[in-house]
Amino acid sequence: MRKALDLAEKGRGYTSPNPVVGAVIVKDNLLLGEGWHARFGAAHAEVVALSQAGEAARGAVLYVNLEPCSFYGKTPPCVDAIIQAGIEKVYIGMIDPNPNVNGRGVDKLKAAGIGVEVGILENEARELNKGFNQYIRENRPWVTLKLAVTADGYIADITGKSQWISSPDARAFVMQERTRYDAIMVGIGTVMKDDPSLLPEKQDGYIPYRIVLDDLLNIPYRMKLCSDDFRKRTIVVTTQTNKNKKAGELQNTGITVIPAEPDDFGWIDLSSALRKLAELGITSIYCEGGGQLAGSLMTQKLVDELQYIIAPKIIGEGIFAFSGFMRTLDEAIQFAWQQPVPLGPDVLLRGKLR
Amino acid sequence: MRKALDLAEKGRGYTSPNPVVGAVIVKDNLLLGEGWHARFGAAHAEVVALSQAGEAARGAVLYVNLEPCSFYGKTPPCVDAIIQAGIEKVYIGMIDPNPNVNGRGVDKLKAAGIGVEVGILENEARELNKGFNQYIRENRPWVTLKLAVTADGYIADITGKSQWISSPDARAFVMQERTRYDAIMVGIGTVMKDDPSLLPEKQDGYIPYRIVLDDLLNIPYRMKLCSDDFRKRTIVVTTQTNKNKKAGELQNTGITVIPAEPDDFGWIDLSSALRKLAELGITSIYCEGGGQLAGSLMTQKLVDELQYIIAPKIIGEGIFAFSGFMRTLDEAIQFAWQQPVPLGPDVLLRGKLR
Repeated sequence: MRKALDLAEKGRGYTSPNPVVGAVIVKDNLLLGEGWHARFGAAHAEVVALSQAGEAARGAVLYVNLEPCSFYGKTPPCVDAIIQAGIEKVYIGMIDPNPNVNGRGVDKLKAAGIGVEVGILENEARELNKGFNQYIRENRPWVTLKLAVTADGYIADITGKSQWISSPDARAFVMQERTRYDAIMVGIGTVMKDDPSLLPEKQDGYIPYRIVLDDLLNIPYRMKLCSDDFRKRTIVVTTQTNKNKKAGELQNTGITVIPAEPDDFGWIDLSSALRKLAELGITSIYCEGGGQLAGSLMTQKLVDELQYIIAPKIIGEGIFAFSGFMRTLDEAIQFAWQQPVPLGPDVLLRGKLR
Repeated sequence: MRKALDLAEKGRGYTSPNPVVGAVIVKDNLLLGEGWHARFGAAHAEVVALSQAGEAARGAVLYVNLEPCSFYGKTPPCVDAIIQAGIEKVYIGMIDPNPNVNGRGVDKLKAAGIGVEVGILENEARELNKGFNQYIRENRPWVTLKLAVTADGYIADITGKSQWISSPDARAFVMQERTRYDAIMVGIGTVMKDDPSLLPEKQDGYIPYRIVLDDLLNIPYRMKLCSDDFRKRTIVVTTQTNKNKKAGELQNTGITVIPAEPDDFGWIDLSSALRKLAELGITSIYCEGGGQLAGSLMTQKLVDELQYIIAPKIIGEGIFAFSGFMRTLDEAIQFAWQQPVPLGPDVLLRGKLR
């Protein structure tokens, strides 16, 4: 199953809004076939593994991180292929939350006399497809909010300087994380201040979408997100549906511009923006700031995971990690820390918000 | 040696400004004697263990966390007792930094033909006597600064409420820590706001001194530190040497009042206050706030260890952990995180400042 999870990860970024899936076929301690869902619309992991195993699959065991599908989508149901191949037992990481499957795959396998065991490395399987799971359940992407802060909680010093609060090790971790999400997201303030490219370290493989929340459609054309070679992977979200000229010009260069509903103050309504992004097939977002966006996402309960990178530095006063709200301790936003992880001189604290 | 360290810890609080020391005597896998330095002026650990072992000590091995003393102080030199007892080999945690010893104990043992090995569990031995080491080296106490903060770095909400940012597990840890220092220290602001008793959980054993930095000698008599059963363990530090009446009245109830030099602004000069406290035999201080004192200690480089208890709560805005200064990232106070430790729902980050 560990191997199936690793294989699944190879599809990361190419399968959305489908889940990532890996499958392994074993008989008498021999690996007969392996496969992963390589991109949206392509063959499913199970089918790839089965065709690799061929006739040898008869009487073999199948490991797959997600329940095999039981319906006709872009491809025929995997359960039929599994039954036909003569697989004897299927080990499954987690049930597919997609209402079209949701246990029916398991039922069909059992009805065909195949042994089924569900829940093998289930936590890892859920973590692997946290975006997909959320997308199916709530029709909005999973949002991880990353913040690099000083020990006294500031994301920048009073001059606005934030490079580099965290260490090279922490930045390498962030680069790695970027490849594990469908999109990276920042507010327009961060773009104006830092002109980030939001790219992963290696640019010859998967490039996540880069989302800018730009209420007033103010983003200058010269910014990297609008002018670099990957601008087809840039999405600008705005409330300014009447700035047709600018939107058109951005779109002509390959950038996607999507209109979002305004909230009561005229700013982007974040819930509706996330739903719109889900419609584009984006199931998971890595949000990299700044304080305004972090504060808004937090108070609107739109953060699923917090990644807090804490540097061993104290500056006394600086730019708040979360701006725009103030609560008493009784009303504090609460969450649960996971096991802390040292990142070079820094410490990574992950918080799960639900 | 692990056993010797544990024995040493039993003397905690009673030996200052002496170090805590534990000793174990072993022969043929048999434990023949054990001892610890129980209180200032009492017999040293080695002598206690030797007298327990008696004649059997001949040819045995001695484990002791600190180099045995080589001079006449309150008691005769331990090295002489060790040589007379016929000990064959001595394992030592760390060399005694006291200039009266500082390697001379080892030299004398070697000169007598006894095998000596230094540096067994040395890190643990140093940690155990970090107060004593600092006191000998710099003539001021070791200062650990403890702060319980929200994830966004606040020690209280905007109403001033700080109870309870951290969890029962974290508070139990703090209670335990209090018994490991000669004194607990707070600023007068914390006393006025929280009226803390600063006692360890169990009050039938060692009670650390409780220090209040009270520049203007404003502390009300009704405060717990001035009125509870342990007020003989309260020390008030002040610059107001002319408030003789109030100082006298406090002293009449058993409280110690010590005058400190004022700094350029008329406030307590922290360096001189720490030196005065060292003169009272205080080798280690656990500082529990508030933000003003934390900021001053930090900028004056008087913090040796930072204990940062981070709660999984976000409030957006509140009372700063460190007040009174503002730096750019380039000028940030830097330190090194130790391995993070979960404390129930909270996380403890320890930082070493030198």
